Amino acid sequence: MKMKKMDYQNVKGTQDYLPESEMIRREVRRTLEDVFIQYGCKPLETPILNYTELLASKYAGGAEILEEMYTLTDRGERDLALRYDLTIPFAKVAAMNPTIPMPFKRYEIGKVFRDGPIKAGRFREFTQCDVDIVGADSQVAEAELMLMALDAFGQLDMEVEIQYNNRKLLTGMLKVFGVEANLINQAVLTLDKLEKIGVDAVITELSDLSISDSTNRLIQQFLTDRDNNRLDYFGSYAERNSQISEGLQELKELTSYLDFLDINKQCVFNPFLARGLEIYTGTIYEIFLTDGSITSSIGSGGRYDNAVGGLVGTGENISTVGISFGLDVIYAAIIASQRTVKTAANVDYYVIPLGAGKEALRVANGLRKKGYIVELEMSGRKLGKLLERANKEGVRNVIVIGEEEVKKNQFKVKKMETGEEEVWEMSAMK
Amino acid sequence: MKMKKMDYQNVKGTQDYLPESEMIRREVRRTLEDVFIQYGCKPLETPILNYTELLASKYAGGAEILEEMYTLTDRGERDLALRYDLTIPFAKVAAMNPTIPMPFKRYEIGKVFRDGPIKAGRFREFTQCDVDIVGADSQVAEAELMLMALDAFGQLDMEVEIQYNNRKLLTGMLKVFGVEANLINQAVLTLDKLEKIGVDAVITELSDLSISDSTNRLIQQFLTDRDNNRLDYFGSYAERNSQISEGLQELKELTSYLDFLDINKQCVFNPFLARGLEIYTGTIYEIFLTDGSITSSIGSGGRYDNAVGGLVGTGENISTVGISFGLDVIYAAIIASQRTVKTAANVDYYVIPLGAGKEALRVANGLRKKGYIVELEMSGRKLGKLLERANKEGVRNVIVIGEEEVKKNQFKVKKMETGEEEVWEMSAMK
Repeated sequence: MKMKKMDYQNVKGTQDYLPESEMIRREVRRTLEDVFIQYGCKPLETPILNYTELLASKYAGGAEILEEMYTLTDRGERDLALRYDLTIPFAKVAAMNPTIPMPFKRYEIGKVFRDGPIKAGRFREFTQCDVDIVGADSQVAEAELMLMALDAFGQLDMEVEIQYNNRKLLTGMLKVFGVEANLINQAVLTLDKLEKIGVDAVITELSDLSISDSTNRLIQQFLTDRDNNRLDYFGSYAERNSQISEGLQELKELTSYLDFLDINKQCVFNPFLARGLEIYTGTIYEIFLTDGSITSSIGSGGRYDNAVGGLVGTGENISTVGISFGLDVIYAAIIASQRTVKTAANVDYYVIPLGAGKEALRVANGLRKKGYIVELEMSGRKLGKLLERANKEGVRNVIVIGEEEVKKNQFKVKKMETGEEEVWEMSAMK
Repeated sequence: MKMKKMDYQNVKGTQDYLPESEMIRREVRRTLEDVFIQYGCKPLETPILNYTELLASKYAGGAEILEEMYTLTDRGERDLALRYDLTIPFAKVAAMNPTIPMPFKRYEIGKVFRDGPIKAGRFREFTQCDVDIVGADSQVAEAELMLMALDAFGQLDMEVEIQYNNRKLLTGMLKVFGVEANLINQAVLTLDKLEKIGVDAVITELSDLSISDSTNRLIQQFLTDRDNNRLDYFGSYAERNSQISEGLQELKELTSYLDFLDINKQCVFNPFLARGLEIYTGTIYEIFLTDGSITSSIGSGGRYDNAVGGLVGTGENISTVGISFGLDVIYAAIIASQRTVKTAANVDYYVIPLGAGKEALRVANGLRKKGYIVELEMSGRKLGKLLERANKEGVRNVIVIGEEEVKKNQFKVKKMETGEEEVWEMSAMK
């Protein structure tokens, strides 16, 4: 069988990352991982293959995500699915291991899969970098995750703004305005589009949900009110609805931490921030690039106190809060902004054998023992071509090992930047 | 829906790695990655989801692996499969990107999937760590990969032996002994079990393949000959079969490198080493632990010059050679041998707030800015319990921040190992 050209295409929504891209992604991954560890997070690794029943649990991603779930059957006739996030696998681990010391603060970096619409920077197979904490009640947890996000993006030299809100406040307000309980979730999803489609379009969509005109007038007033981004705006509503008062209290606590840490410029309260997913129960936040090079969020998360308890089966609330960074969208942002990322993989020494393969191998080996990154030439191409490539790829030093060098027991090390040459003894390379 | 207990089981052949395990795996992964980079390898990332047609190509893993392939259909009715190795995706990338500068030397660390039998240290979802080079003819490539393997396992403090052979030599010998062409592959697979099942069982299996008694007598003699592990043993056969002479020449070249690098104690010629997969065309090698704590190989690879050309569709041979390390089996070996692996994730400072959450958060933040790994207490549990846990987890220093500390603008840092205390100024933590 001769393969046809078509066969080399990647599956729609997937892509290869060639070295130039992957070196940047690798650097982002390591930076995030190192920051996660600095914040006391421990690594966890969960399988990609899961029982469909687990991933389709009502404590999971919700109807929209389930439609996008890749499912398959194994040889043992098990109904399996590829994970679509790292949150449910985390909740599963917490549920399966009740003796894990709490709070359990873990990070996981791994592939997830969604058979959904594709757009710029959005794939069907992509990498998420998540931190979640189970067993932490206080808003200190949220504050620390937000701080961690600022720290991570700072290290990546990306200026971000974190918008935050509280689900209780938002749903409480909608209730006070008269939105019926069964429409709250849909109304929240509509509000989530405010930034994108504007107030009028939001109100039109809400009308389409058969929310009454009088309610919509109140919502519209709320959306356009100048003071709605100040917490004390909600004080009078708090008396009318316990969700609002709870949400407000949590927001005040969180804000006090952000003020104290002096990160209230980068962390901004947005009373309409909604987050698409249904699982959130308290604080929610989304991270945006301030330069606008990518308009979708590059990270997000919040508190979801029902999922772990729901999976455990006791139904009891177990405090859980998390944050998720999208490696692919961060990478897209780096490329879009033409930021330079320092990658570690530049070759220190390029060793070219000219009829002295063994000795060249030994020199390469000796340099690696000293900790250097060394490439040994293997193509057998002409020296001119090789030096050209070395120059292009930013190789730092070139060493040619030929018969002459073997005879003299010496070789030259040429610094590519300056053209300087140094003579080294062969015997030093053992 | 209340979840039943069963729902928390992981899918057969998959497992979670909790922090204690994952910290070790992470260390192994980073060690391998750093060694790969030192040897001039560049990172590549390929999708897990592939077209079934690509993975089922005849240049791919062969019939046995295809049976174990997880397949699925996406919402666009595409026939997809989960990759079962990293080699075919690499060959695909080489075929899709004909302008990549050669030799192209890449590493990839990623999940692969095989719906096959499970045994100790063998899973259905597992992580491979591969290095492959396309465009390198000479046995220098093999020598360098073997050197790299020794280097990597040396850094992991694991003593290994690398057994090597050449497919041409083995198939040439079988031909000379009279094995028919269509039975060669099966005979090779049988010989691969020699170490496990012994000479007699191998001969019985060969007879079952309807290989003639006279041929089997010659094979038996070969298998039991004392000198068969010396290359000059094959000299006389080389004249009778060009495959043998080619294989022998390659082995001699490789051996001369191994001698010169003084790694011929760790690298041992084994004339019966076969490697299960059909794709190999020249040198093959397998890596074993010398302490026997794990008897299956912990890494393997070889030269497969037909795959990339086959995928490109030209059918032309393109020199390709690779090596693959199994993260899961290496991890199993580390656990089996009770080796200690230095993991970096021990907490430097454990900050416990006692009614001074904000200040504690700021102290934690200040220490992280200095590069330390810091855990901020969030459970609100009693101090005694917290110190107990800190002790158990090897936390280095504990800091308690209460009202007293805030008032005095000072706090104590307690070294857990010695019990020593130091007083620090709060103002130093900004």
